[in-house]
Amino acid sequence: MESMYIESPQNNHVKNLVKLRDRKHRNRQDKFIIEGLREIQHAIDSNYPVVTIYYCPELFPSESHSQFLDLLKAKGQPQCIRMHTSAFSKSSYREGPDGLIALSEAKEMSLSTLKLKENSTLLILEGIEKPGNLGAIIRSAEGAGVDAILLNNCLLDAYNPNAIRASQGLVFRLPIINVETDYLLKWLKEHQFVSIATTPKTDNCYSKQSYSQRTALLMGSESHGLSEKWLNQADYLINIPMKGHADSLNVSVATAICLYEINRQKSL
Amino acid sequence: MESMYIESPQNNHVKNLVKLRDRKHRNRQDKFIIEGLREIQHAIDSNYPVVTIYYCPELFPSESHSQFLDLLKAKGQPQCIRMHTSAFSKSSYREGPDGLIALSEAKEMSLSTLKLKENSTLLILEGIEKPGNLGAIIRSAEGAGVDAILLNNCLLDAYNPNAIRASQGLVFRLPIINVETDYLLKWLKEHQFVSIATTPKTDNCYSKQSYSQRTALLMGSESHGLSEKWLNQADYLINIPMKGHADSLNVSVATAICLYEINRQKSL
Repeated sequence: MESMYIESPQNNHVKNLVKLRDRKHRNRQDKFIIEGLREIQHAIDSNYPVVTIYYCPELFPSESHSQFLDLLKAKGQPQCIRMHTSAFSKSSYREGPDGLIALSEAKEMSLSTLKLKENSTLLILEGIEKPGNLGAIIRSAEGAGVDAILLNNCLLDAYNPNAIRASQGLVFRLPIINVETDYLLKWLKEHQFVSIATTPKTDNCYSKQSYSQRTALLMGSESHGLSEKWLNQADYLINIPMKGHADSLNVSVATAICLYEINRQKSL
Repeated sequence: MESMYIESPQNNHVKNLVKLRDRKHRNRQDKFIIEGLREIQHAIDSNYPVVTIYYCPELFPSESHSQFLDLLKAKGQPQCIRMHTSAFSKSSYREGPDGLIALSEAKEMSLSTLKLKENSTLLILEGIEKPGNLGAIIRSAEGAGVDAILLNNCLLDAYNPNAIRASQGLVFRLPIINVETDYLLKWLKEHQFVSIATTPKTDNCYSKQSYSQRTALLMGSESHGLSEKWLNQADYLINIPMKGHADSLNVSVATAICLYEINRQKSL
């Protein structure tokens, strides 16, 4: 393959990488960007269809970055395109870029392709607002071994650059699926999930709840919590007791506490 | 009291507020800054010796900001100093300032002044590096009702503006004390604390550990975890099982999971 070199920050590749920071363009193209070696590695290891790697060796902070690139070049794919520092800096979204940006196609994921287990745990996020929180939740959920994350009424997508970063690339390690409320409600019932909604509007402590069956944990948005619809439809409501002066925990912390309690009970 | 008005960003008050972003100056003056209504309110309600309130009504986002100020003025203390927008913007540390900055004296806190309970829980943080993480940990620890947070070998202090912000002002709601390792080790033994260190270097799952006695939970730094000294001296080691591809959780998430498991067991 002939090697390509991009020098100008006005190059179309650069312009497109900048565009893809916006969800609108990610949706139009069904493509997104992944920045950083660790993140790209997780995507490749999870069989994401990476199309192009843009690299700038002048910015590589470690030997492993060159080794990673040499490996890809030896395989002959994906296409690797070298960039001048100025073109790369324009393309990069991060404060301290490490010289690697990947362009990947999105993965088609739907509820019907999910592989469920006897005691699967799903995490449903309604209306999460901050990419940093979404990424942090993904990181904890992957650590807790949830089978999938379902996004409901979220303006955010999981391919948001800040969400990818906050997840440390773990976003590529588990299915993350956008689902519409009514379809999801029906699907949960059909697949014998017990839905459990977190809310301050109950006295039922999360650790007194039993999670012996297939569990769908529901978390609401940072500002509004879960909608009335979910609170009414959920099989159980739980809360996390607050012993101090605050009325809530950060949503990623609250999610992790519940998921690890579910794990604890399932491992008894 | 005569009312004062600061117009120039070159005013000495402004310069001092900017200086106090640095720990060096906080230590020299034994003073620190608190930005934002919610945060200042927590400090005042917790009897922090607030010396001065700087305000800029043009930036107030809500009626409650004016009401808060009127209340202070009616009480006659602390001193309230109005600032011109340009002086306030220079003084402010935040992206979207809400028109309120307080200057407070530090509170003298030591292990000897701690009020301990039969089954107290303490959180010991060794070498935490990021103010955002420290603040997030403080928020979760306050929610979990720990009796105090002890900082060991931390370059950060709890009066770091980013830590205050990330804690949502809850930093003022519980004792946070800097302690030297050997003194702390001795003190923990004398006060019958069981010390429990989190580390990936053990198979002992955090939820199989018993926390029936006075508990001191030890968390290490983001990059290095706990030092050998603490790992050797701790009564028990615990880990949090990771079921995915990551080798660790965010330190504030890991802390919250352990603290809430301690609570769960203590409430059985």
